[in-house]
Amino acid sequence: MKKKNKKVNAAILIIGNEILSGRTQDKNVAFISNWLNSKCGISVKEVRIIPDVEKIIVNNILLLSKKFNYIFTTGGIGPTHDDITAESISKAFKVKYEFHKEAYEILEKYYGKKKFNNGRKKMAKMPRGSKLIYNPSSAAPGFITKNVLSLPGVPSILNSMIENCKRYLVKGLKVHSKTISLYTVESNISKELGVIQKKYKKSVEIGSYPFFRLGKIGVAIVTRSPSMVKLKSVNKELLKLIYLKKIKILKI
Amino acid sequence: MKKKNKKVNAAILIIGNEILSGRTQDKNVAFISNWLNSKCGISVKEVRIIPDVEKIIVNNILLLSKKFNYIFTTGGIGPTHDDITAESISKAFKVKYEFHKEAYEILEKYYGKKKFNNGRKKMAKMPRGSKLIYNPSSAAPGFITKNVLSLPGVPSILNSMIENCKRYLVKGLKVHSKTISLYTVESNISKELGVIQKKYKKSVEIGSYPFFRLGKIGVAIVTRSPSMVKLKSVNKELLKLIYLKKIKILKI
Repeated sequence: MKKKNKKVNAAILIIGNEILSGRTQDKNVAFISNWLNSKCGISVKEVRIIPDVEKIIVNNILLLSKKFNYIFTTGGIGPTHDDITAESISKAFKVKYEFHKEAYEILEKYYGKKKFNNGRKKMAKMPRGSKLIYNPSSAAPGFITKNVLSLPGVPSILNSMIENCKRYLVKGLKVHSKTISLYTVESNISKELGVIQKKYKKSVEIGSYPFFRLGKIGVAIVTRSPSMVKLKSVNKELLKLIYLKKIKILKI
Repeated sequence: MKKKNKKVNAAILIIGNEILSGRTQDKNVAFISNWLNSKCGISVKEVRIIPDVEKIIVNNILLLSKKFNYIFTTGGIGPTHDDITAESISKAFKVKYEFHKEAYEILEKYYGKKKFNNGRKKMAKMPRGSKLIYNPSSAAPGFITKNVLSLPGVPSILNSMIENCKRYLVKGLKVHSKTISLYTVESNISKELGVIQKKYKKSVEIGSYPFFRLGKIGVAIVTRSPSMVKLKSVNKELLKLIYLKKIKILKI
């Protein structure tokens, strides 16, 4: 992974009817986004959840791969008829959908020649020119095609593979973040927060998120910035505001 | 809510840096999608998660409101500077962003005249022509503007408001679903599943999802269709396949 002092971004494309229908609760967005920021300095700027429909996958791959530095896809790389991610990416980039020699060997070795049936062989088919993202859990590899990294949908397997994505990514500026949790309501501090945000609008992003804990209402103020110096000075101003307003701090 | 015997669809637009950054795990997609299908016969066809940036919100509102029957937005309707959903929707539809008389009265009554500060007043500002989605938890209402329904991001509040969306929605065909959980691996049944899916490709959607339980590998086969008759006949074929392959059923 090369080190670069610039902003690098990504989109996540969740492919799967089971997430769209609400049957399955997605857990991959939060995991990938946290990992990308903390380990690679890459910010996720958009997420889309789409159905297992070839035309829709193709259109989204083409659009997002132009708009962002990387796309991470999850889902649709297994052995069944509804696993059409690899074939759709091939169509999007107009490259052949074919057996990847190394993936074929890995899977053949894992299952044994006799048990290496057509379903399993399908998992070795990828867009021509793809490179492998190794899978320490269940052998079936993910792959990177141009700037699109394709991972499985099962969270435990995806999580075990994520470190193997690193070698393909250009590192960007890490965004640091700080959270102050308060026992107050948003409207008590909204005016002053707005003033502080305006002052730092180019360098620090201030978010305000209400929460409920043990029957009490609170607000988490989250500040995010690639600059530690700016982050610290915003938080100094926030603490001054909290002190002046006599607000109780829950956690800092 | 009118009853119609047709397909009605929706998109969900999650507005919030905290979801994109991975700080907060979204729970609204699964909730809204399940509710829409089971209570209104409306299928969610696309989800997008985008940052609190006006231009991006405006573009997505315009695009999705043309593409789908309804859009549900979550987040960005509170009192702070990063709550820009209402103003962005006003800009998208080129209507005035102004106080909604009824919302103003509800909030003024809830907080009391003296405590009704500017932050709280902001929650009564909406795109001209919006209708209210009442909020039994914390008074601040959601609103519907053309075909866009705007709800808060906090799941417990959103959940308490969802029934109040119903009156604005045209009912569609409910999609029924059935799940068979098996102790097997996907590649053991992938070929036959593909054959069955092909036969019913216009009427039933068959999904296959691996899972891990108590150290064992399993597959959940999920069938979905607006037609109960077709759903039953697909499941009959699936059970025949399971019997022939001598696969152990975990749950049906």
